[in-house]
Amino acid sequence: MAKSPEQEHPVKAFGWAARDSCGHLSPFNFSRRATGDKDVSFKVLYCGICHSDLHCIKNEWRDSVYPMVPGHEIVGVVTEVGPEVTKFKVGDKVGVGCLVGSCHSCESCVNDLENYCPEWILTYNSKYTDGTITYGGYSDIMVADEHFVVAIPDNLPLDGAAPLLCAGITVYSPLRHYGLGKPGLHVGVVGLGGLGHMAVKFAKAMGVKVTVISTSPSKREEAVGLLGADSFLVSRDQEQMEAAKGTMDGIIDTVSAVHSLLPLIALLKSQGKLVLVGAPEKPLELPAFPLLTGRKVVGGSATGGLKETQEMINFASQHSITSDIEVISMDYVNTAMERLAKADVRYRFVIDIGNSLKSTA
Amino acid sequence: MAKSPEQEHPVKAFGWAARDSCGHLSPFNFSRRATGDKDVSFKVLYCGICHSDLHCIKNEWRDSVYPMVPGHEIVGVVTEVGPEVTKFKVGDKVGVGCLVGSCHSCESCVNDLENYCPEWILTYNSKYTDGTITYGGYSDIMVADEHFVVAIPDNLPLDGAAPLLCAGITVYSPLRHYGLGKPGLHVGVVGLGGLGHMAVKFAKAMGVKVTVISTSPSKREEAVGLLGADSFLVSRDQEQMEAAKGTMDGIIDTVSAVHSLLPLIALLKSQGKLVLVGAPEKPLELPAFPLLTGRKVVGGSATGGLKETQEMINFASQHSITSDIEVISMDYVNTAMERLAKADVRYRFVIDIGNSLKSTA
Repeated sequence: MAKSPEQEHPVKAFGWAARDSCGHLSPFNFSRRATGDKDVSFKVLYCGICHSDLHCIKNEWRDSVYPMVPGHEIVGVVTEVGPEVTKFKVGDKVGVGCLVGSCHSCESCVNDLENYCPEWILTYNSKYTDGTITYGGYSDIMVADEHFVVAIPDNLPLDGAAPLLCAGITVYSPLRHYGLGKPGLHVGVVGLGGLGHMAVKFAKAMGVKVTVISTSPSKREEAVGLLGADSFLVSRDQEQMEAAKGTMDGIIDTVSAVHSLLPLIALLKSQGKLVLVGAPEKPLELPAFPLLTGRKVVGGSATGGLKETQEMINFASQHSITSDIEVISMDYVNTAMERLAKADVRYRFVIDIGNSLKSTA
Repeated sequence: MAKSPEQEHPVKAFGWAARDSCGHLSPFNFSRRATGDKDVSFKVLYCGICHSDLHCIKNEWRDSVYPMVPGHEIVGVVTEVGPEVTKFKVGDKVGVGCLVGSCHSCESCVNDLENYCPEWILTYNSKYTDGTITYGGYSDIMVADEHFVVAIPDNLPLDGAAPLLCAGITVYSPLRHYGLGKPGLHVGVVGLGGLGHMAVKFAKAMGVKVTVISTSPSKREEAVGLLGADSFLVSRDQEQMEAAKGTMDGIIDTVSAVHSLLPLIALLKSQGKLVLVGAPEKPLELPAFPLLTGRKVVGGSATGGLKETQEMINFASQHSITSDIEVISMDYVNTAMERLAKADVRYRFVIDIGNSLKSTA
């Protein structure tokens, strides 16, 4: 018989878990493996709340396993390293993002694209190589193979850096891969949430002209004034959208609700690229004609490989880019989830795990 | 008052035209401009029947102007050249494809992509710079600016070469642009019609492993035996499709009926590219999740620029590639259109204009 989450591993751990698809989070005693030869163990200090955490605790992607400890924007300080670890030492500031494992031998893995490995192991709600379920960062301690751990440079505040591990890399990677992060290009960012605001910051730092596209006219001031976007389009304003037709080299579309692609494709120049990083549950409508007549593409992108994640962190360090966050205590998490569902956050909740997660045991 | 088609230009011309959206073609007297300084005039010998001719004569794209002389797979022999023409002389074998004009100054034009110029002028059913309507190749003579004329090498039979001007370049260009025409790659071709059979021939000549994907099991023998495809998938056979998942670097999708993209996206490897070259009238369903998790793209492509069209013709000449055709006489064209609507042709009708178009004047 399988052991309980509390007994299956030798190291006591404590976090908050969802117990079923109502998604309510509550204190949870579990365990983690001892530090293996190539493992880095660390005390978790902050963990960002990603929108996918909300999807997962409510089983909206229909693959949730309970109890579930969410969280894949995890930062902290190293407490122990295995004897074969070469990149980290006790006291280092580190982070873990969406992945804690992959096959290391497929075409994706050998090209530093572990995030597209068919055998990827997600940081939570996934089955690890030993058959146990992975638990995420809403917890006091973390352990991971050093391959899946990144270094956080000293000049980045840990709380604002946490969301880089998912939101940051999710928009950085497509800017690079699709060739959009080049000075002089014009890139649209659809949706101004956790992902969108990071896309604006990274694209601006890459020298790109950025236009934020949003349904809410009220976000103009944030977009242009606060985040430094060059311009702002209200997607429901036909005149504005018409005037901007054919002006963009690419668009990073962060919206995860079902929405119309046609007006976005129309904003692209010939050869333009619309990149989806949000994942609507239902299929979107794709008009073929405008793709053909402008040789445009609609592509996707999902987080990034470990090499690129470290590159993104280093780029963020050089340009002093962090996420705009609202730091919360652990016991506020259920309220935070309710607010997140209403997009009521500028722009990312980060849980102050180090100071507010207290064992009730 | 605008002059009649027969009087608006100085040179008498004769062809077959559709008079309204019933699409029936009948003899038509009209006129063409005199050979201008940069113009090439030629006697039309053959003209292919493209599926878009059928859409246009029936006004299925809702932009048809009647009377309409269709045809944009036009080959013939030069009869006169303007004083500034440098590339052609009387007696040369030449061709005109989908385009007879563009702005020459936009970003697309300066990059030899006249086919994406927003001011492109189509070979028929388009307004020329002088305000008159353009007439296509179902006619005895043709005149075009030499920029939009390509040379047909001697070793290519003119009848089989005609469909290269549209069907050929329509599949050649995306194989090149999307990086799919490389030895060792595996490319799927969806639909085995005028476009699909050319895609198989070009891809094979580029050293690509080709799998034809079709709804009709009966096409296996044609695909593999006749055209040299490496393998064949019946798209309605779940088991075959399941077994082929994740095996293709790209797919050229020639189907212009509404169809499901999800099973095609599933056939792609990570980073794979699904390229639409058929234009379904209604939007297709695009599932976002598989695009994201495999960083796949769905792109479009529409014919090719003039430089690339000549490159394609030269490649066809080197590899002795022509279209598999059924040569018909002009007065068979209405029957041919009925058969084309039922996909009853292997694989392209070509009208023997030179021998069968007789003036009734």
